[in-house]
Amino acid sequence: MDEIAYMYHAIQLARKGCGWVNPNPMVGAVIVKDGKIIGQGYHKKYGELHAERNALENCQTPAIGATLYVTLEPCCHHGRTPPCTEAIIESGISRVVVGSYDPNPLVAGKGIGILRSHGIEVMENVVRDECDKLNKSFFHYIQNRTPYVVMKYAMTMDGKIATHTGRSQWITGSTARQRVHEDRHRYSAIMVGVGTILEDDPMLNCRLENGRNPLRIICDTSLRTPLQAKVVTTTDTASTLIATAMTDTNRHQPYLDAGCEIMVIPQKDNHIDLNSLMQRLGEKQIDSLLLEGGGTLNWSALQSCIVNKVQAYVAPKLFGGSGKTPVEGLGVDHPERAFLLSKPIITQIDEDILLESEVIWCLQES
Amino acid sequence: MDEIAYMYHAIQLARKGCGWVNPNPMVGAVIVKDGKIIGQGYHKKYGELHAERNALENCQTPAIGATLYVTLEPCCHHGRTPPCTEAIIESGISRVVVGSYDPNPLVAGKGIGILRSHGIEVMENVVRDECDKLNKSFFHYIQNRTPYVVMKYAMTMDGKIATHTGRSQWITGSTARQRVHEDRHRYSAIMVGVGTILEDDPMLNCRLENGRNPLRIICDTSLRTPLQAKVVTTTDTASTLIATAMTDTNRHQPYLDAGCEIMVIPQKDNHIDLNSLMQRLGEKQIDSLLLEGGGTLNWSALQSCIVNKVQAYVAPKLFGGSGKTPVEGLGVDHPERAFLLSKPIITQIDEDILLESEVIWCLQES
Repeated sequence: MDEIAYMYHAIQLARKGCGWVNPNPMVGAVIVKDGKIIGQGYHKKYGELHAERNALENCQTPAIGATLYVTLEPCCHHGRTPPCTEAIIESGISRVVVGSYDPNPLVAGKGIGILRSHGIEVMENVVRDECDKLNKSFFHYIQNRTPYVVMKYAMTMDGKIATHTGRSQWITGSTARQRVHEDRHRYSAIMVGVGTILEDDPMLNCRLENGRNPLRIICDTSLRTPLQAKVVTTTDTASTLIATAMTDTNRHQPYLDAGCEIMVIPQKDNHIDLNSLMQRLGEKQIDSLLLEGGGTLNWSALQSCIVNKVQAYVAPKLFGGSGKTPVEGLGVDHPERAFLLSKPIITQIDEDILLESEVIWCLQES
Repeated sequence: MDEIAYMYHAIQLARKGCGWVNPNPMVGAVIVKDGKIIGQGYHKKYGELHAERNALENCQTPAIGATLYVTLEPCCHHGRTPPCTEAIIESGISRVVVGSYDPNPLVAGKGIGILRSHGIEVMENVVRDECDKLNKSFFHYIQNRTPYVVMKYAMTMDGKIATHTGRSQWITGSTARQRVHEDRHRYSAIMVGVGTILEDDPMLNCRLENGRNPLRIICDTSLRTPLQAKVVTTTDTASTLIATAMTDTNRHQPYLDAGCEIMVIPQKDNHIDLNSLMQRLGEKQIDSLLLEGGGTLNWSALQSCIVNKVQAYVAPKLFGGSGKTPVEGLGVDHPERAFLLSKPIITQIDEDILLESEVIWCLQES
């Protein structure tokens, strides 16, 4: 195996932490000596050992003189666990190959610097693009302290997310819908508007075997969520947070009694201020959020510049009519003022297509 | 070169006839003797020689004992030109390699049969899929005697064909728009509703160098097309046909004076009967039609089951708002009653994406 193959192996290991490490990054590590893997590990769960320490613990022979392949720059700060740089130095590892650079201001090149100052050879940027892809939401969160927001919707090839009668089950096929549950496992939270609760009364859980339920966030300016809604009655299986501008604590009580969390957020343009909400969620260590709202909430989110990525599932069918579309609200008045997206990454999922783009330009209000 | 390479060469030749041979098929032919191409040709223009005869005329040495590679089964009937089977037999060609089978009831295997009965070896279905692709609209037309209808639209990734203010210039980039002009050259006619004329006053011409303008068809039930509309004032550069339910010939006269053709079509559900229109267009040898209508006409066309293919250009941008969508009208009431399309063929065109699907199920009214 060559260096690139070892790093890909570390990436595979890192992915096993998906959904369990947030708001930490996914990290994998492989220790190689005399052309043999003598230890490997990954960051398994938030609060537990980092990948490097797990790989060292896994070593069957002493790591003196070995090479460590790690997908992300080792940390050098005391967090919930001691710095990985210390463990590496102590182990006698003589060479470290790194994928991603850690933009965390507490690390940010310092980890690599400490290793070098201890005479360890460090090689950087190996398979960096793939390593970076693992942790898009972590990189965003660590730099902005607000969640990485993915706006997800499923539409027909004529741009409808429901028929004119409001029916939307189902637009895409079962494989595409399964993939959405993988994303619900991956991201820390899922967010919808109260309109979706009133119309569809969804569970908003992750229906994967061994999946993790995301925090369910309801944007509900006037606190209209019914107490009998599934998101309120099932807080024993998944957490629910209602973000509202309603300040009357008497109105909060029945939701609190049902096990929901209430977050009071200031109002802006007749709905809760999404920027303020994102800051508060960041403080709660929500690093990533799947926005599965309707057209109104999606428009507010775009206008508030909180959307980082768009995931559009497109099904090869046509509904016609004046059904709902993925983004509504006021809308832009001229094509030149459109929200621009990056060239989509295209994935075929059975008959359906997934288009994934980053938001590359954000309409700033003057 | 092997057999497959000769056939691909014939396909390349056939494509040169694109836009000029309708309602005939595009056909290319290559004559090979002793491992050398001794003649080649293609069907250049409707009414002129077929590919096989052009290839024979092009031969630099006698074709006795040679192999003919031809993308479509040679004709055996007297049309505007005498049967190609006769020319092949006379030439002394001893072997014919055929791509597509000709579904024209006047040919339909008879061409191949005649060749074989004259002792010529015939090999069929060579690179057939590629050869078939050349002539989808011909195959449809020859079997149904109505045009092959391609519903084309350009939308944003949130399903809008215009902003809420009605602006649609531009949604896709220049390369995608260029491709639409190639299709306007390729197909015999272009069709829009009078709404598009009233809103955008488009030219509906082909802006390619050496391009051919399609017949411009306006669906105008009540004859509301303004006499100063570009499609009316420019009939010296491109033909215009107005399909209307208006029977008052006094109302027709000014359009006729301007050089337009008027076709009176019976009314159905408050608009002209599109099935009736398609039959009349078929009689006029319109074999293919690019439907560039708005959402209302697109819905009527789907309901009338005249749409064969959908071409959806998707631009990576978002408009939001209640702008127009590609298919409107009443719409289906339940996802299970959606118009189903085949798994899309995906083409990336710069930043944009083209999704092409066949209509595989058509909502039949009971």
